[in-house]
Amino acid sequence: MTKFQNDLFLRACKRQHVERTPIWIMRQAGRFLPEYRAVREKADFLTMCKTPELAAEVTIQPVDIIGVDAAIIFSDILVIPEAMGMKLEMIESKGPKFYDPIRTVDDVNKLKDIDPTKNLKFVLDAVSLTKKELNGRVPLIGFAGSPWTLMTYMVEGSGSKNFSEIKKFIYNQPTAAHKLLERISDAVADYLSAKIEAGANAVQIFDTWGGLLSQTDFEEFSLRYIQKIISQIKRKDEPVIVFAKGVHYKLDKIAEAGADVIGLDWTIDLNAARKSVGDKVALQGNLDPTVLYANKKKIKEEAVKVLESFGKGSGHIFNLGHGILPDVTPENAKYLVDVIKEESKKFH
Amino acid sequence: MTKFQNDLFLRACKRQHVERTPIWIMRQAGRFLPEYRAVREKADFLTMCKTPELAAEVTIQPVDIIGVDAAIIFSDILVIPEAMGMKLEMIESKGPKFYDPIRTVDDVNKLKDIDPTKNLKFVLDAVSLTKKELNGRVPLIGFAGSPWTLMTYMVEGSGSKNFSEIKKFIYNQPTAAHKLLERISDAVADYLSAKIEAGANAVQIFDTWGGLLSQTDFEEFSLRYIQKIISQIKRKDEPVIVFAKGVHYKLDKIAEAGADVIGLDWTIDLNAARKSVGDKVALQGNLDPTVLYANKKKIKEEAVKVLESFGKGSGHIFNLGHGILPDVTPENAKYLVDVIKEESKKFH
Repeated sequence: MTKFQNDLFLRACKRQHVERTPIWIMRQAGRFLPEYRAVREKADFLTMCKTPELAAEVTIQPVDIIGVDAAIIFSDILVIPEAMGMKLEMIESKGPKFYDPIRTVDDVNKLKDIDPTKNLKFVLDAVSLTKKELNGRVPLIGFAGSPWTLMTYMVEGSGSKNFSEIKKFIYNQPTAAHKLLERISDAVADYLSAKIEAGANAVQIFDTWGGLLSQTDFEEFSLRYIQKIISQIKRKDEPVIVFAKGVHYKLDKIAEAGADVIGLDWTIDLNAARKSVGDKVALQGNLDPTVLYANKKKIKEEAVKVLESFGKGSGHIFNLGHGILPDVTPENAKYLVDVIKEESKKFH
Repeated sequence: MTKFQNDLFLRACKRQHVERTPIWIMRQAGRFLPEYRAVREKADFLTMCKTPELAAEVTIQPVDIIGVDAAIIFSDILVIPEAMGMKLEMIESKGPKFYDPIRTVDDVNKLKDIDPTKNLKFVLDAVSLTKKELNGRVPLIGFAGSPWTLMTYMVEGSGSKNFSEIKKFIYNQPTAAHKLLERISDAVADYLSAKIEAGANAVQIFDTWGGLLSQTDFEEFSLRYIQKIISQIKRKDEPVIVFAKGVHYKLDKIAEAGADVIGLDWTIDLNAARKSVGDKVALQGNLDPTVLYANKKKIKEEAVKVLESFGKGSGHIFNLGHGILPDVTPENAKYLVDVIKEESKKFH
């Protein structure tokens, strides 16, 4: 059991008392940092994911540079479909591409079962190495995409405007869709268990595309499999965070699915969310990421509004409502971290 | 005063008794119809908008072909910024582009005031001509973009992934932003008044990008100006519909802003929405547009779920939760219309 110099993040996940609100930032190991871009110049994105030394280096950068209270391992949610046998390419400034997207049950059947300790050893090595180098300074978060979000990429093949292919797939081939979701769920559960085994102190499931679904479809095609994963993860007391972007409804059901923490985007009112989930889970979020384009006065004002909307007491992890944008200045990001460290004291 | 053969749509907007739920479909005058594509082959998009005969022709097509209960004038929300002096181009399969986006208060000052009866006469002529050709079969809807949504396009210059420019603009130049919103609001109010004068029986304000904003920003930068427009529109009893995509909160405030009907996307539960707005407004929506990719059994099932979620009584206009997608078959769209005409009877 690691003894942390700063375990505010973990205590907040468990709704235990904290002296101030912890903060980390989605995509904090990313392009907004010049130190990240310097590493990125030496290696392409997937090579960085697959080289534990590079992954560890950029994972730790935001802890050193902007002072966040947790690290999140540098990786990508699409390493899972790649490990299942899909050829993945990251196209500069366009995003990910699978050249052979899933369209039929045969395509689903052709996917391989994965053993994370073999197929995804590079991630586990990156986790162990990062843990060693962090040396107990802050906790380390592991993550994965939700089955629905991974399936969306696997079927669309790339980013999408209307998400027509994935919707055709679930409406016209629901059996194949559920089969695929089952297989992804098993892979994600094994993967997150292995990350915890390798040293991750918490895990976050990103359901980036949950908000594309109607409320009943969200329960059928996304939440059900998130629940399955949470029930299968092998863990001691490592918290599970569920971040379902655009999902503004049924937060109580996400809590019932076993999440310890619910991540919220910036369109949600934290106060209303807290009322609807009661004491069941902690909440993470939810400053509009574009507020970091503003001047410091405005950043402080909006950050304090988020603290106020959650209100007094523990169970809040400050974060943005979505990933930090690549053209935000590190100065503004660091300022946000400093503001939260100082201003949140009075809420505890 | 037009005597309609079918005024179900208008009665539902006013929450009066109807024998069945009326239906129309956002973007019904659009690419999914081969008859539309035939017209589009002869003229580019903006030429179609500016040629009353062509606009009238495609406006009436869905009334004839799929049997909807209202027509909506074929046009584009960006004719307003164009009339204010911004050079607009529609780039095939990429969307709209302004070559000289607004970035400073000087850019705002350079915009022209519009007189719809001069600068946008082509739309008014299209409305009059369509009314004549419809000859009272169904009501005709006019529309405009909300000030926030129009400003988003005017500042971004085109579609956007992160909407960085518009957010920088409102956070760093709020005075310029409010000045621009004021000017757009006046233009939109005059424009919608002129459309009603020309014969539109209802108007819809599209706030396509309302959902990009946090709840407080939505009130400050969007809702406030929608309210201003509604208070300025010259009308007798023509209903105003407000459709703010992604805005799942404060529906009661949209009702208080003076909307007669609130349009809802497919992530909203109609039953919960109805409870939150009470008897103040009618609701329009909200089938997931991608359900039209499914087979007929599924389409019927999901359409009935929407009827059920609103429940019994008047004040519901059936629609999709967003525009119909270009690769939906006319057969499925017509099937949806038929299903609603038949299945909704038992809710009244």
